[in-house]
This record gives sequence, structure tokens and C-alpha cells, in this order.
Amino acid sequence: MTPVPSGEDGAISERVQAVFDDIKATRKIERVPAIWRALAAYPELLEASWDRVKRIMADGSLDRKTKEMIALAVSITNGCSYCINSHTAALQRLGATRREVEELLAVVGLFNEMNRLADALQVEPDVRPEPWD
Amino acid sequence: MTPVPSGEDGAISERVQAVFDDIKATRKIERVPAIWRALAAYPELLEASWDRVKRIMADGSLDRKTKEMIALAVSITNGCSYCINSHTAALQRLGATRREVEELLAVVGLFNEMNRLADALQVEPDVRPEPWD
Amino acid sequence: MTPVPSGEDGAISERVQAVFDDIKATRKIERVPAIWRALAAYPELLEASWDRVKRIMADGSLDRKTKEMIALAVSITNGCSYCINSHTAALQRLGATRREVEELLAVVGLFNEMNRLADALQVEPDVRPEPWD
Amino acid sequence: MTPVPSGEDGAISERVQAVFDDIKATRKIERVPAIWRALAAYPELLEASWDRVKRIMADGSLDRKTKEMIALAVSITNGCSYCINSHTAALQRLGATRREVEELLAVVGLFNEMNRLADALQVEPDVRPEPWD
Amino acid sequence: MTPVPSGEDGAISERVQAVFDDIKATRKIERVPAIWRALAAYPELLEASWDRVKRIMADGSLDRKTKEMIALAVSITNGCSYCINSHTAALQRLGATRREVEELLAVVGLFNEMNRLADALQVEPDVRPEPWD
Amino acid sequence: MTPVPSGEDGAISERVQAVFDDIKATRKIERVPAIWRALAAYPELLEASWDRVKRIMADGSLDRKTKEMIALAVSITNGCSYCINSHTAALQRLGATRREVEELLAVVGLFNEMNRLADALQVEPDVRPEPWD
Repeated sequence: MTPVPSGEDGAISERVQAVFDDIKATRKIERVPAIWRALAAYPELLEASWDRVKRIMADGSLDRKTKEMIALAVSITNGCSYCINSHTAALQRLGATRREVEELLAVVGLFNEMNRLADALQVEPDVRPEPWD
Repeated sequence: MTPVPSGEDGAISERVQAVFDDIKATRKIERVPAIWRALAAYPELLEASWDRVKRIMADGSLDRKTKEMIALAVSITNGCSYCINSHTAALQRLGATRREVEELLAVVGLFNEMNRLADALQVEPDVRPEPWD
Repeated sequence: MTPVPSGEDGAISERVQAVFDDIKATRKIERVPAIWRALAAYPELLEASWDRVKRIMADGSLDRKTKEMIALAVSITNGCSYCINSHTAALQRLGATRREVEELLAVVGLFNEMNRLADALQVEPDVRPEPWD
Repeated sequence: MTPVPSGEDGAISERVQAVFDDIKATRKIERVPAIWRALAAYPELLEASWDRVKRIMADGSLDRKTKEMIALAVSITNGCSYCINSHTAALQRLGATRREVEELLAVVGLFNEMNRLADALQVEPDVRPEPWD
Repeated sequence: MTPVPSGEDGAISERVQAVFDDIKATRKIERVPAIWRALAAYPELLEASWDRVKRIMADGSLDRKTKEMIALAVSITNGCSYCINSHTAALQRLGATRREVEELLAVVGLFNEMNRLADALQVEPDVRPEPWD
Repeated sequence: MTPVPSGEDGAISERVQAVFDDIKATRKIERVPAIWRALAAYPELLEASWDRVKRIMADGSLDRKTKEMIALAVSITNGCSYCINSHTAALQRLGATRREVEELLAVVGLFNEMNRLADALQVEPDVRPEPWD
């Protein structure tokens, strides 16, 4: 929508450059991915979004690979092409096997179906999560 | 939509009873969950759906807990109440911690946002998954 | 959201009453369905919406029953409870059999899955519809 | 995502070839559609998906053409490009007329609107489907 | 899907030509946008759709710019590429600033996240809109 | 999902209490809305979410009322009950008129339809947003 400098030249603001530098350092990549270059047209949104992605996607109680699988499941369910490509490639770089991706696709497909059947039959919840201690 | 016997009485067909028995044995539960009782109005769909859930959700290259996290991510993204309750409770029974669920919710929320920003900015894919060997 | 008179009392405007009367006459029912009573808070939207529903859902090249099946497929895919109940009941009144509804549910479930797999694999169209003569 | 042989050469496994042969025989086509060639990277998912499509889309209580209309309604509602192209073309091959497709589009459009209005107004169901005999 | 004359030549029906002329006059543009040329394959749907867009998008209690912001928010949430491009460009022509669009994107992103968290936590409404006087 | 203290008693952590106090002070309300009480089970997510809502929904280049209209448009499109109730009530408190809400509903309904027609007809973008200066 709004082509912006790629981060290789000097025409971008210091604020944007700082985010681009952090992306390259954190992800250990040479080139800033297209989503961040597009967001650079909106510096405040760029900063806030990268800050959240960096923090939420770091290893935690769930590891990065599990988080990428969840991200891919969401992206497939929303039909977002850029995100599907990006998270599938990320999973491959993190060592996901062909069989793991096949099982992920099977689960995502299955519950896109089962969610609709539960809605279609107007099934009322018969089990509730437990409150946490 | 179509109230059917709960599996505790004798008014259901042998075909449905066989599925109900297998659900209770496989899941080690006493009572058949509401989704399967609703599907019992449509025996062929009941059989086919249970067969797929049983097979796809078994431990494989991905373990059952990871698969339940993916199922929950899909169900939240689709806004299916029955499924959200059911998969959250399943994760708790499988030992998921409060912090693991918090991280899952953070990732699901984040990419429901980022998917829409990538669409909004019409970002073209700049990375493609690798063909498998 | 905005409780309005049910059409049985006199507190509604003539404009709304005219639509309510037409709904009862067209559908041969005694009571105005809840969606129209809710829309009565917004008379222009009520008129425009009923006009479209009446016109588009009439028998045409596709008969009313086929149109109700399409409406139900859309409503399940969007997860709209009111609409799912309403269109399923309409199909039953139009004589749809249990087996027809079972097949409809199977097709709706199947393509909610297949749509996501096509997106997940980023499959490019290899066939295009023909221009009409 | 994962380019695979098209079924015209010999580099694919016997398992995949068997599915490809069945697709060509069942559909009476010369070339395997792109969705199946993409799924060939995941043989178990390919087999399971084709088995379901073949079975569910066969003539039954609903004929193939009605099923393709339902599939197209779902695919439009989910915004799946590959599927929209594929099911529209299938309907044309099955003899659907321009006017039938126009009415289908009108119904799909109408209920994508009405579903959202019912949600917006938080309309509670006032009619429930009848239990089947 | 169905290429039709662009409105610059004489091969289209008078009915379609009348709509095309009204679009150009109302929007003060030289060329009929692609959505309307595609709809020309279905003249009744073309007429009904243009009539609604013209009427609903006119200045009213909400001005055109506010309506275009709402239209863009819906289009982003549904992931419709054509519509995202079209409504973003319309906003620019109506004088929306870069900062206004940034804030719109932030709000759309935020509630695509918050909607899913509210669903995930199965939060029951604790406030209801007031009936209108 | 996880009932938590309402903020009126002392059983919640200081961290959660600080967020609850800020919500009540910022929004000038006596009782913490249900979404925030549900999120209190996950303190980090609560803090991060409230921080974003507070910042993004403040008056800026777009005023609070316009932002609430965008939030409602997104919530209707996603079918989130809690959010629809909450943002409709917020609009009423901010002085939105019945006619303004009617026009908002008409625009949201219209583009939920038009988005699907643009997808159905596979319309390619014919206009691109301009890069910002």
C-alpha cells in the first residue's frame, strides 16, 4: 500500500531505522521482512507491533516452535497469505518436519470443520474450564 | 438442535451406541460429550466425525497437548463457544499451566491482529516455504 | 438490543406496521420473527432489509428450498445462532428430510476444512470460470 | 507451498499415484487439479481428503449440483480464491445457468449481510428446529 | 470471473449502460470500477447493488468519510483485497491524513485481538445498550 | 472461564488492583467491566491489553466516538457478543443518535455483502492507494 525504503538506504527516519536494526539483530536476518517495511509508513504502529511480536514470540513457558505452530493455525483460519507463507517458512527454519506440518494441517482442517458442526447443531457447552488455583 | 438420548438409556440405535461406547472407552469418560450426542441425529456424520477426531488427535509426531493447543487456537479464531470451553478444559486435564494458557492467548490475540494488518497493508509474500526433500 | 413492540399492540409507527403486516401475509405466520422486531428500531433499515429478503428468497431459477439451504450454509459458516435456528426450521417446514440436512452439514463441514487447506498450501487457481455467452 | 510432480511423470510414490489415478477416473479429467497436487506433499492427508470429497460430493439425497452450490456458498463466505474458481467452474460444467448463479450470489450476499445484522442487534432465537422423528 | 465490456464500447445492454452512466456521474469518474464491470454479467444484481451503495454511502447523519472508514474496517476484518484497496484509496481522495489511517489501523487491529480474547474467555455481556426513546 | 474477584474485595494481587484502579479512574466508572475481570486471571495479558486499549482509544486524530464506531464495525463483523454490547453502549454514552447507529449498521451490513461479492467474482484491484508523502 505504501512503499517505503527497504532499510538498505538512508531515506528512513531514525525511529524506523532503530526498529529495523532491532528486527535484523533479533531475528539474525539481513533483510527486513515485508510486513515491517510496509508498517514503516506508520512509525508508531511499527514500534508497537514489533515490540509485541518480539516479546510475545520469545521462548517462554511455550517454546518458539509451539508459538509458531499456533501462529500458523490462526493465520490459516483467517486466510492471510502473507502470514501463512511467513509462519510456514519460520517453522521450517525451526526444524519442523514434514510429518509435523502434515499433522498440524490435519488438526487445523479438522477443527475448522468441527467448529462449524458445533455451531450448526447449536451445541451448548457441557463442560467448563476450571478456575485456576 | 435435535435432542437425542444421552447414551445412558436404550433408545438409540446399535450404530450410535457403538460410537458412544468407543468415545467413552477412548477418552476414559463416563458421559458422552454434548457434541457427539447432538451428532447422533445424523449417524453417518457421527461415525465419520468421531473416526477422524480419534485418529487425528492421537499422539503422533505432535503430542496430544500440542494438538489441543492448535485446536483451541482455531476455535478461538472462529469464535465457537462449545469448542473453546471443550478444548480449554481438555488442556487443563492434560496438565497445561496457567502461564502456558496465558502465552497461548497472547499468541492467538497477536496474530488475529497481525493477520489483519498484513491484509490491510496488502503485503505481498517475500518468503516462500521450501519444498520438502 | 432495542426491544420494540411485537406488532400485537398499537405503539408502533404505521411505517413499521406496514412491514409487519406484509411479513405476516407473505410468510403466512401469526407472529413477526424476532429479527424483524429488533430491526423495527431502525425503520429505514427494516424496510430495505425486508424488501430484499422478500424479493431474493422468492422462488425463481432456484427454488425456495435450495435458497434456504444456501442461506443455512452461509449462516453456519458465519456462526450466526439466530440465523442457524431460523433457516434450519425453515428447511424443515419446506419438507427437507433428515438425510438431506445430514448431507448439507457434511458438505458445509467438508468445505470449511478444504477452504483452509487450499489457503494453507497457497494453491493457485488452475481453472477459471467461463465467461457467460 | 510444496511443488510436487503433476502426476504425468514417474517421480511420485505409488500411494500418491493411486489417489491421482482415482481422481482422474472419478472426475473424468486428464489433469489432476492443483489442490490435490499440492496435498501430495502430505500423502496421508491427501488420501483422507480425497476419500471424503469423493464420498460426500457423490449424488445422494442432494444431487451433485446442489452440493456444488453449497460448496460455493461456503467458499465465498470464507473468501477462498482457489475454491471459488473451482466450484464456480464445476457448476458451469454441471449446467448451471447464468441466472441460477446470479440468484446464488444474491442469496450469499444477502445472508452475509443479514447474519451480521442479527449479530449486531443481538437477536435471540425465537424458533427452534424440531427434533427428527 | 466473467469479463464484460468496460463501458467504453457499445456491446453492453441499455440496462447495464444506465447503471454505468450513473456510477460515472455520481462518483465523478471516467472509468467504471472493476467491481461494477464484473457485476455487469448479472444485471439485476448490478442494479440492486449500485442502488444500495449509492444510497447508503451518501452523506447523512454520518458523513461520507466516516462511512468509508467503517467500510474499510469491515473490509480489513473480512480480508477482501479489492475492497481494502478501493476504500483506502477513497479515504485518501476524501482527504484522510496518514495519521488518521494509522489510528484506524490501530483500532481495527486492536479489536480483532480483543474480540478473540473476549471469545476465548467466554465473557458474558455485563452491559446492555439502552432502548431508544 | 476463570472467575476472579470483582475488584471490590481484597483477594486480588496488587498488580491486578493497580490496573483495576486505573480502569475505574480513566473510564470514570464504579465497576470494572467483565472483560477486564476475566483477564485478571492472566495478569501480564491484563496489563498489556489495558495499556493498549487506553492508549489507542484515547482522542487523537480520530475522536473517541469515531474510534468506537470502528470498534463496533469490527465486532459485528467478527460476531463477538460481549464486544457488540459493550461498544454499542459506549456509543450511546458518547451521544450517538439512533439515526447514526442505523447508518452504521447499514454500512456494516452493506460491506459484509459487497466484500463477498468482490471475492465471489474474483475482482482484481484496479486502484491502489497512493504512497504517503
